[in-house]
Order: sequence, then structure tokens, then C-alpha cells
Amino acid sequence: MTKFSVLILGNASAAPTLTRNHTSQLININEQYYLMDCGEGTQLKLREHKIKLQRINHIFISHLHGDHYLGLIGLIQTMHLMGRATDLTIYCPSNIKEIVDVHLKASESQLKYTIIYKMVNSKDSEVVFEDNKVIVSSIPLKHKIPCSGYLFTEKPKPRRINPKAIQEYKVPKHCINRLKIGEDYTSLEGETVKNTKLTMDSLPSFSYAFCSDTKYFEKIVPIINGVDLLYHEATFIEEHADRAKKTLHSTAKQAAEIALKSKAKKLIIGHFSNRYPDLNVLLNEAKSVFKNTELAVQGNEFEVSNSQ
Amino acid sequence: MTKFSVLILGNASAAPTLTRNHTSQLININEQYYLMDCGEGTQLKLREHKIKLQRINHIFISHLHGDHYLGLIGLIQTMHLMGRATDLTIYCPSNIKEIVDVHLKASESQLKYTIIYKMVNSKDSEVVFEDNKVIVSSIPLKHKIPCSGYLFTEKPKPRRINPKAIQEYKVPKHCINRLKIGEDYTSLEGETVKNTKLTMDSLPSFSYAFCSDTKYFEKIVPIINGVDLLYHEATFIEEHADRAKKTLHSTAKQAAEIALKSKAKKLIIGHFSNRYPDLNVLLNEAKSVFKNTELAVQGNEFEVSNSQ
Repeated sequence: MTKFSVLILGNASAAPTLTRNHTSQLININEQYYLMDCGEGTQLKLREHKIKLQRINHIFISHLHGDHYLGLIGLIQTMHLMGRATDLTIYCPSNIKEIVDVHLKASESQLKYTIIYKMVNSKDSEVVFEDNKVIVSSIPLKHKIPCSGYLFTEKPKPRRINPKAIQEYKVPKHCINRLKIGEDYTSLEGETVKNTKLTMDSLPSFSYAFCSDTKYFEKIVPIINGVDLLYHEATFIEEHADRAKKTLHSTAKQAAEIALKSKAKKLIIGHFSNRYPDLNVLLNEAKSVFKNTELAVQGNEFEVSNSQ
Repeated sequence: MTKFSVLILGNASAAPTLTRNHTSQLININEQYYLMDCGEGTQLKLREHKIKLQRINHIFISHLHGDHYLGLIGLIQTMHLMGRATDLTIYCPSNIKEIVDVHLKASESQLKYTIIYKMVNSKDSEVVFEDNKVIVSSIPLKHKIPCSGYLFTEKPKPRRINPKAIQEYKVPKHCINRLKIGEDYTSLEGETVKNTKLTMDSLPSFSYAFCSDTKYFEKIVPIINGVDLLYHEATFIEEHADRAKKTLHSTAKQAAEIALKSKAKKLIIGHFSNRYPDLNVLLNEAKSVFKNTELAVQGNEFEVSNSQ
């Protein structure tokens, strides 16, 4: 089974507390690291979890409210001090380069590595990153300023070789890769062996959707349809729905309704207002609509493949 | 005895660690708070020490290297979220307003309070703040970019009333304030009583000098002459003097030499390179030159009046 996990580095909205840092998550897909948002203090949270900073090559910022990106400049500078040479790509629906540049100018720093900025479309879903294992698409959200979620979808995995059958039919090594993509095998003698005789089904592919600050916004439902693990902000409970409406945030119930409508396998909620010392009020509200909900507790790691 | 203390909120140079945050100190003079530098995560350190953020009205930034100010934007935003209405004054030898403004623009924030920016002269010492209790002057330092230390000097305190003598000579209440500034008392009958019969000597006044990132720079010696408590950076030990020279930092020995030459009562050193897991190598080097040295250990509070 390949790794696909989400480590919660922070889950606070507004002011951080000693147990709830600002939003950040580390997504690990097959030991490739992707950082999702980067609130103040994220570099220390990464250190706490013994994550090697230099293994992060892609940072996705949902929007430019301070609680989602103020740790970025410090992280960029620490990567520089530690001798980074590898490119770093930053995805954001607003001009974050302007912010990074004003800091670098002030400190008269010349980074030893290159930052590539990718402007994300926050009005429509589009592919923002793709490699041979994963596709990342933006998820348009509705907040006070341009704001984007991100959907990580594993590509279909290769069919698994059946070593016993390979031996039996004497398939040469150089034909293996073709079997993995589903082709039949034809021997030098012209005999064709069906792929299904030589391989087993691929391992399933999984998906994770990160839906950052947003009001209740049904437009995202078809985009995240059938997602395995859905993170959706749940800043308030229904009792404070007026506050949610005014600040363009969601209640726990609304987050659960999005999970239900999009047929997500599992929901995790976060970005908790610090007016709730007991987070169970949020959890219970969400669970009353969508049973398979958990709190995005800081320090918890969620296995996307284990979302049933 | 009035309060005059320095609480160490961080002491790391370059990359922060789990036990050493970036530079910040809270100076408490008679329950007035002054924040000195504001590395990333300072707002959480303040929270850890149960310091009410809104009681900070003056923030002094030494220079615009990230490890000295990257916590400022988050602190400003948290003060705003918590409903601040009081002015906040920020002192800095460079244009920090440009940085704050680019963040506020990105988040489309309208602060509910006013920030007053005071540009500090980093070439010569000059008074940057004064009230009825304290004078704060800049200390020109020599670093890669404009950098200023700050000298806090308590003003002479009022003479202390001798309650027994006041009663004996039947001094009316409205004459008390004049006694405090040293005047004699003349009764309605024309009898003059010497001030020294009615009052006791003032409590002593103390001073604290914060000397942030700098190479060894003797020009500061007359400015901080006779200071009670001196904080001086000591990033390296003499073994790495070449590194100190190249980066315009000081060694522990150099910090101690400045303490010795300026006849400081006590020295605290900080801004430690994280190449030294055991900080005693820095402490011992400084002590070999200036005995009354301590490490600016994170979480320690130093009483300036107790510097002998």
C-alpha cells in the first residue's frame, strides 16, 4: 500500500493558542511532501514532527489571511539558511510574490534557490500540479478574499505483476512495464496471453480535498464528488450561524452537509473558533448530519486510504 | 522598589529550534510593557507567559532580518482581532511600514487601531521615546543592514515622603508633590522645614541596554557607559571568529569586552548560533573576560535592579 496521509500541523482560526496553531497540513503521497497552508510557527511544528523542511518542494496557500500564510517567510528563510538549492513552487490565488519580495528586499537577502509562483484560479477548478502519481486541482471557495481549496487525486496505479504467472509464461523483463499498463503479452512464437492472466488489479487510488475558509458553497460538490477524505473548515456551530454568515465561514453542520452531498467517505473538520474550549460541540453537530466525521486535532495524522 | 525587568521570549539566531525561539524580549518598567524585537511565534510566547497583548503599546525593532520581526504581522493582526483601539507605536531603523502595509493590503484588513511608525536613527544615538518615567535612546550598531539597539534609562525618581515627619510638621496634602521634587516646606506661619527632614532619598534609577545583531563595535561604549544590565548578542565563540566577522556578528568574548569597557554591572548574552548545543561554551568564554555574565535563557526574567 502506498502512503497517502494528512498530518495536521494547526487548526486554529483567528488568534492561535498554545494547543491550536494556525492552519497548516503536511500531505505525504508516497513520501513526496506537499505543504498545505503555512500559518505562523509552521516551521517549528514541522521540526516537532521531525519533517525535513528541504523535502517540501510544493507549498499550496489557500488565501492571504494571516492565519494561513504568515509562517511562509520564516520557512523560506530557514530553507535558505540550511543551504537549499532546489526550486520551491508556491501556489496561491493572489499575488504572494509581492509579499515575499518586500521581505527579501528589506533583509537584502539573495535566496540560493528559485521560488516559482503559480497563480491559482479561484473562480473555477483547474489543474495546478501534475506528476506521474498525482493531480492537484484547485477548488473555488467563497470567502472575503480570493480563496482556493485543493483536491489531490492519485492517478490510476499500475496493474500488479503476478510473479508466478510471469515465470510460467516466461515473460521477459522488458515486457513487464507494458503489462503494468494493461497490455496483453505476445511471445516470440506468436502466442498471446491475456493481461488478466499475468497481472492482478491495481491498488485503488485515493483522493483528498482541502477546503479552507469558505461560506457554505455547494458549487464545490461536483468537484469533490466521491472524495475519500474531505477536510472542510467548521469555524462555528449553528448557534453562531449569523457570525458564520457575516465572516463567510461555515458551521460544522454546513461542513457535514457538503460531505454528505459530495458523497465523501470521511470528513475532518478544523479552523475552530477559540470560543469553543470543548470541540465536541462542533464534532457532534457535524456527526448528526455526517456520521464519519473526526476533528482535525493538531498532531493527528489521517490515512486517506483508511477513510471508510 | 519599582519593577524593571527583562523577560527573554527568544534567543535563537538563524533557524529557531523547539527550545530557542527567535529574538524577542518583554521589558516591564513599572508595569508598562515594551516589546523588544518580535521573531516568529512571539505572540505565542507572550501567551505562554500570560502577558496581555493589548498592554503592549510600544514595539522596538532592531532591524529587518526575519529572525527579529517576522512575528510582528501576526501580533498586529491578533491585537486587531481582539478589538484593540489603542495606538501602537513601532520603532525601526528601516521602513517597516512598507512591510506591514503589503500584508494589510493582501488581507484587505482595516485595522481598528492606529499604528504610528517612528524611524530610528541607526547612525547616532538619539532619544526615540520619553515619558515621565523612562527615556529610550537608540544605540547605533554595525550589521549587514541598518540596525539599532535601544537604551532604556529610568528618569530620577521622586524623593520618598517620610510619613512620620509629615505628621510631625503638619504638612498639608497639597504640598506633598513639591516635597517629592526636593523643595523645602514653608508653613503658613512662615516656618521653613528643610526637605531632607521631611523626605528620604529617591530610589535609585536603573538602565538596560539591548544590543542586537552587531559586529564588535566600540562606538557604543560611551553610549551605554555604566549601564546596569547589558544584553549583547554573542552568536559565536572565538573559535568561529572568522564566521562572526563575515556575518557581522560578535563572539562571546567580544560581547564581554564591550561589557567591561562600558563598565556594565551585568551582561546577558543571547542570539546563539544553533551550532552550540551546550551554551556553556559561550558563557564560559564571556565570563573569562567579564565575570558577571549570564545566558539569556528563554523564559528567564532578569531584574535590572538586581544586576550587581
